[in-house]
Amino acid sequence: MSDFPKAVRINEEGPREGFQIEKGPIATARKIELVDSLSRTGLRQIQVASFVNPKAVPGMADAEDVVRGFARRPGVRYTGLWLNDKGLERAIATGKLDIRGSLSLTASEKFLLRNQKRTLDENLAAQASIIAMYKHYGVEIDRLGIMAAFGCNFEGDIEPARVLALVAQALDLAGRHELTIRTLSLADTMAWATPKSIRALVGAVRDKYPDLELSLHLHDTRGMAIANACAGLAMGVAVFDAAVGGLGGCPFARHAGASGNICTEDLVFMCHEMGIETGVDLDALIESARLAEDIVGHPLPGSVMKGGTLAALRKEIASH
Amino acid sequence: MSDFPKAVRINEEGPREGFQIEKGPIATARKIELVDSLSRTGLRQIQVASFVNPKAVPGMADAEDVVRGFARRPGVRYTGLWLNDKGLERAIATGKLDIRGSLSLTASEKFLLRNQKRTLDENLAAQASIIAMYKHYGVEIDRLGIMAAFGCNFEGDIEPARVLALVAQALDLAGRHELTIRTLSLADTMAWATPKSIRALVGAVRDKYPDLELSLHLHDTRGMAIANACAGLAMGVAVFDAAVGGLGGCPFARHAGASGNICTEDLVFMCHEMGIETGVDLDALIESARLAEDIVGHPLPGSVMKGGTLAALRKEIASH
Repeated sequence: MSDFPKAVRINEEGPREGFQIEKGPIATARKIELVDSLSRTGLRQIQVASFVNPKAVPGMADAEDVVRGFARRPGVRYTGLWLNDKGLERAIATGKLDIRGSLSLTASEKFLLRNQKRTLDENLAAQASIIAMYKHYGVEIDRLGIMAAFGCNFEGDIEPARVLALVAQALDLAGRHELTIRTLSLADTMAWATPKSIRALVGAVRDKYPDLELSLHLHDTRGMAIANACAGLAMGVAVFDAAVGGLGGCPFARHAGASGNICTEDLVFMCHEMGIETGVDLDALIESARLAEDIVGHPLPGSVMKGGTLAALRKEIASH
Repeated sequence: MSDFPKAVRINEEGPREGFQIEKGPIATARKIELVDSLSRTGLRQIQVASFVNPKAVPGMADAEDVVRGFARRPGVRYTGLWLNDKGLERAIATGKLDIRGSLSLTASEKFLLRNQKRTLDENLAAQASIIAMYKHYGVEIDRLGIMAAFGCNFEGDIEPARVLALVAQALDLAGRHELTIRTLSLADTMAWATPKSIRALVGAVRDKYPDLELSLHLHDTRGMAIANACAGLAMGVAVFDAAVGGLGGCPFARHAGASGNICTEDLVFMCHEMGIETGVDLDALIESARLAEDIVGHPLPGSVMKGGTLAALRKEIASH
């Protein structure tokens, strides 16, 4: 309970993961507007675009234009997403992104078989060619991501032992290629985590790998994201992915209107109120959330943008 | 971290606190429909109506009709709300409610001065006439509620010491009247609580009064309700007020669309997933949440009703 970090780092994923699920096309200029708005909030990392096949994801076909359009702000890392060498090449070609390599495993074999037609072992083996790809382009690899780390809609609950085994295999592979993995990202891809399972998995990983920096990628599909983040914070987790306004629904949810990623400003609000620094100007971030809502044209699930901050109330009270 | 209770008791407040804030009139028959639906979920306590001045709160003028109309189910306590002897008399006269007395203090003097034109001391003194009222009607008093226990929009943060002092004064008063207070309800009336302040206040109260049963009344105005409930559970709190679907906005929120009380089915979901019994059939409760949404005619903030349960997914997976 006493392991709360003094400061956390938030990777804003709204412009990429958040917009990806929206039905209507979003104008390139408006995507750029959101990235520029987020750049002014104090966030130190923003994922701006997805370099995936434009035929498969037409909404992201303007990735290069988005990257060309936004204004880089010193101190902010701007990242992109890619799934293969073609995407990576496109991201590098922009000359404007912070390119970092990542190994990516998935803890659910059924999910892998469905989505990538691979077994767990085949997916691990495929990481060798990922490493080769990054080495070819001179990109540093210092991160490992585990998707569906808490559960999977097609396989059910995922035990910490499964994740630990994958981490061991990936670190072994990395070691054989003389790579040092510094950050482990645990993704609750289909929103199976609860504060209890966060505690169990983060605890197990920390016990075994005390030097790994842990990062959580949480979804709010079942309303648990902020409680899960709090459980992570209590275990010392200091890096979180999040999406402004709670952008990004869930393709696996059972009903329309399900929430997306953990909401950045709600997470920032909780951190600040618990004395944890984020470096983010919450009022500016709420303005970005309002802008995001305006851009997608429907209400977003974020709470603090509707309920208001306590800092504003304290200021009002002090001025009376 | 290891003080999680084995089971929790949930007081459903949707039909009362939840409907109170809705703008449009809600037909009596539909209120009854919701109470009957909730009665079938396994919930053991439901607050069905508010016996307040019909001129001040026209939407609750049908309190007697609601109580007359619903079907009592064995094992369920049906409660009402009143603010004075007139309301209490009306509640008793229905002959159908479980009447229990409660002392009620407010931790914020500015809130008290605004709403009841009383100081903290005057409000404490007024409890003597509340006790006299209950004694007159032969109603047992075994509960103490503290409103604005974590903070107040007009006064700011409330320190645990303030709440502890109020509890001491109220227990002293109760002792002088030969009453035994068994339950202390801490209400986060204006949504100032965070997991940190829940831990601080609940911890302080538990240390000083280990025999008091603690209950939390949480609002989700700033998205913290589930995380706050989890912090309470971790400190052994085993009684929660909640509203189905997350019914009940917040009159103090800064913007329309702010969330209301903690959502009953999201709380039940979290408890079940963490191995804590509630006695509630989550699927039946989600049906009630859908009914509530239909009754108010606009989307409710509950998450699990949109994202779906994990139990349903596990069942599907097992059947393949």
